[in-house]
Amino acid sequence: MARWEPNARQRLVQAAIDLFGEQGYDSTTVAQIAERAGLTKTTFFRHFPDKREVLFAGQEVHGRLLTEGAEAAPAAATPLEAVAAALDALTASFTPEQRAFGPRLSAVITGHTELRERLAFKELNLAATLTDALRRRGVPDPTAGLAADLGVRAFATAFARWITPENDQPFPALARDALTELRRAAAALT
Amino acid sequence: MARWEPNARQRLVQAAIDLFGEQGYDSTTVAQIAERAGLTKTTFFRHFPDKREVLFAGQEVHGRLLTEGAEAAPAAATPLEAVAAALDALTASFTPEQRAFGPRLSAVITGHTELRERLAFKELNLAATLTDALRRRGVPDPTAGLAADLGVRAFATAFARWITPENDQPFPALARDALTELRRAAAALT
Repeated sequence: MARWEPNARQRLVQAAIDLFGEQGYDSTTVAQIAERAGLTKTTFFRHFPDKREVLFAGQEVHGRLLTEGAEAAPAAATPLEAVAAALDALTASFTPEQRAFGPRLSAVITGHTELRERLAFKELNLAATLTDALRRRGVPDPTAGLAADLGVRAFATAFARWITPENDQPFPALARDALTELRRAAAALT
Repeated sequence: MARWEPNARQRLVQAAIDLFGEQGYDSTTVAQIAERAGLTKTTFFRHFPDKREVLFAGQEVHGRLLTEGAEAAPAAATPLEAVAAALDALTASFTPEQRAFGPRLSAVITGHTELRERLAFKELNLAATLTDALRRRGVPDPTAGLAADLGVRAFATAFARWITPENDQPFPALARDALTELRRAAAALT
């Protein structure tokens, strides 16, 4: 039934971020996003429930990558080594396009309380997903939750560094560096 | 102009939680909450922008208490000692009424994605407020952020324990215990 729509999802994300940047998040409609992407509203709603979710498109995939990365770590890995493996899997999935629109994505989210709430919830969900993966590795509570928090915090810090124009390091290396900094900070605290 | 409305804010919170429990969050209107509290809609809107915010009534006060507690800690206190002082100030402000409606508050929030998002955002804001208070004490990044995360996590853990029927410990003692557990978990991680 549906026409062939190559990369529809990615085109919708790109169109949304372009329009949010050009005319503001509040003024942009789903119809405009679909039109800019050269797609129909029906196609839009096959991919996203509303314009807000376009900005958080990766949540399920990101959770799955974290889980797979943590599961793939050697059995003898420490909790933070498993977190590092999870971050490797997640950050390796990011594309140059995502880096290119990162600053505009961050600007839109920062400017809207509703979107900041949604981002906080996404990070909470990622932390919960990673916590579950660590528990399945036998990491007890509250250590599992704390290690997952460090992982999500490292991800957020590394993302902010990765999208700066002056950065020339790969995202996975930045995430590992951020995790190391957080591990040292945690050690200094205790 | 306004009539004398003793404890209007607290009455609205109590009425809202009663109605959310009786007939559901989605079915409850601001008009019903105001009526149950024996107040007008106008009074409701003097205190809260919408029915959702009734459930997060304490956010500004909680942030201020955390800040004051952290500021009141001795200059020689470690970052986590300052966090403990912040938690003391915050948890000491909670009333037996808040403990009594805690389980219903938690149930309403857990049942609605929108409310879980809002809670995640509240916790993010509290962590940011506490991070700022720690920075002003000279705690560097990312240690300040991490210490604040431990504090907010200890608060959430202790709140969940405090509102269980079988608990007989004061909230501040539970918060200190939770922070100690988290400190040990962080030490085990690093």
